[in-house]
Amino acid sequence: MPSFAIPVPDAAARAAALERLDGLVKPVGSLGRLEELAAWLSAAHGVVPPRPLDDVRVVVFAGDHGVSAQSAYPREVTAAMVRVFLAGRSGVTVLAAQVGAQVRVADIAVDWDAADVPEEVTAHKIRRGSGAIDVEDALAPGEALAAFEAGRAIAASESTADILIPGDMGIGNTTVCAAVVASALGLPANEVVGTGTGVSGEALERKTAVVAAALSRRPVTDPFDRLTALGSACLAATAGFLVEAASRGIPVVLDGIFSATAALVARDIAPGAEQWWLAGHRSTEPAQAFALKALGLTPILDLGFRLGEGSGAVQAVPTLRAARAVIAEMGLLADLG
Amino acid sequence: MPSFAIPVPDAAARAAALERLDGLVKPVGSLGRLEELAAWLSAAHGVVPPRPLDDVRVVVFAGDHGVSAQSAYPREVTAAMVRVFLAGRSGVTVLAAQVGAQVRVADIAVDWDAADVPEEVTAHKIRRGSGAIDVEDALAPGEALAAFEAGRAIAASESTADILIPGDMGIGNTTVCAAVVASALGLPANEVVGTGTGVSGEALERKTAVVAAALSRRPVTDPFDRLTALGSACLAATAGFLVEAASRGIPVVLDGIFSATAALVARDIAPGAEQWWLAGHRSTEPAQAFALKALGLTPILDLGFRLGEGSGAVQAVPTLRAARAVIAEMGLLADLG
Repeated sequence: MPSFAIPVPDAAARAAALERLDGLVKPVGSLGRLEELAAWLSAAHGVVPPRPLDDVRVVVFAGDHGVSAQSAYPREVTAAMVRVFLAGRSGVTVLAAQVGAQVRVADIAVDWDAADVPEEVTAHKIRRGSGAIDVEDALAPGEALAAFEAGRAIAASESTADILIPGDMGIGNTTVCAAVVASALGLPANEVVGTGTGVSGEALERKTAVVAAALSRRPVTDPFDRLTALGSACLAATAGFLVEAASRGIPVVLDGIFSATAALVARDIAPGAEQWWLAGHRSTEPAQAFALKALGLTPILDLGFRLGEGSGAVQAVPTLRAARAVIAEMGLLADLG
Repeated sequence: MPSFAIPVPDAAARAAALERLDGLVKPVGSLGRLEELAAWLSAAHGVVPPRPLDDVRVVVFAGDHGVSAQSAYPREVTAAMVRVFLAGRSGVTVLAAQVGAQVRVADIAVDWDAADVPEEVTAHKIRRGSGAIDVEDALAPGEALAAFEAGRAIAASESTADILIPGDMGIGNTTVCAAVVASALGLPANEVVGTGTGVSGEALERKTAVVAAALSRRPVTDPFDRLTALGSACLAATAGFLVEAASRGIPVVLDGIFSATAALVARDIAPGAEQWWLAGHRSTEPAQAFALKALGLTPILDLGFRLGEGSGAVQAVPTLRAARAVIAEMGLLADLG
């Protein structure tokens, strides 16, 4: 397993930020979470106030799964949604435009021929779809590492961003994530499986059975083997993206179940990387809550989102900018006289 | 007591919005609270999609109280903070600038001579400070109505705004609000009193005793009498502001305990007005939670704010704009083919 040198956020900058926050023209602590975030950003940037957060970029990792037969939507929706992203009319592209963030789509494992999309979209493609995890490994030997390296390369190519956001698109994603989180944390299938895009009743029971079957199919030996057995090329790529961003000290805002699951695996590959991540929002998926808890991350927003794509993380960007503005621009009590 | 004709939000526009939301390129309901807000805005504007929310204005109602001796801060801070607002260096002015909102300060009852501030700031002044509610009425006969009318006039002068936000500044505000909410809802002092700007221990006990004494001093007969006995000129002005905004069908985002308390009184004066209000955030004050519950409002954000000024409401503005963008700009499932 490769190893990574993860830098440590600047404790002195954090302490200086906390001192400045206590001296602003407001009761101590009265801006709650904004103050925590201002201190976090100061530590990440190593300076008080932290730098502006102008350049925000979302990378949507798109791919299909052999388990997508369990979803409320057919597999073909993944490819159709890639076109919606490129047309700027998806949830995350509309919400990103609101906060001035750019969105890039990376086809890691979409099951289509992709003949007419820009080369940038498919440059890091690993395969078409992935194995049905209840009956076979998701990935062939070597593919998890290849996808992880693809994600690292994508993060490296976006390394001038002030904030990076991993998004996801793939019918079947929540099933795969539930399996990976359950495996990583030793939880039973019925505790981690959620409604995803909207399954209930018998469909939810089938989804839980798929996850249970996947978990009992064979033991896993390490995080890369977990991605191989239960994950997907997109999860591996997102994990690589997160590790590379952390190794470069770029703040990342995690989105819903998909990025939280990738983050859990990435933390196991590169301990300490979680210090560079924030949880943008609480999704309605139980596996996201378990993963964030294990990572020690508390969501910034709770808007009942379960869309994925990076949409919830993008929605948290104004809060980060507000946190930076507070510590950069508010007056000091000492100046009141 | 004056009566008001409050318009009803457009149910047909709301229904059309919900239908459109279900047809967007996303699983039904997967954008959670944003979808509710998009439908709410559509009903408020009577059109789908709702109009852009470009023109957002905060009015900070500033005033002092006879009970401010209980606060963690001296009364003089109110006047000093008015200068910080005018200099653009307070919490709400910094946060408002982030979302392109304007901030206006209205000195309703600040205990200072205000000789050197712009005439616009003091144009609606009612008095200097207010009575100590544990031993006397907050306002003289007629002042509650005069302040209410001042708030109405201020809302009328800002009626071209797309969103109005009532802010507040006044050492002692949370004590007065706790008394008004307890009186309106029949709650005991110890359930409604919170830490305010940061009191604890004996100071918190003294604050609770002040509220209990105020509640037992004399019975109140109606909402205006409640403002007279237990409130303040600022609370009355904010209530008038809220009623006037509702009567004109202008959406309002409430902030923390102060605007929630004013809203509770305003709803008692003009039933139905609450249909034009959103709760921007959950503060840490128990009286805010009681008031919002009584109004049937659920906070959009929960960032642990207890600053007031309108700061939490301003922070919710990007979420409202995101809700509008979703219904205005996302693609339709029907166009996927």
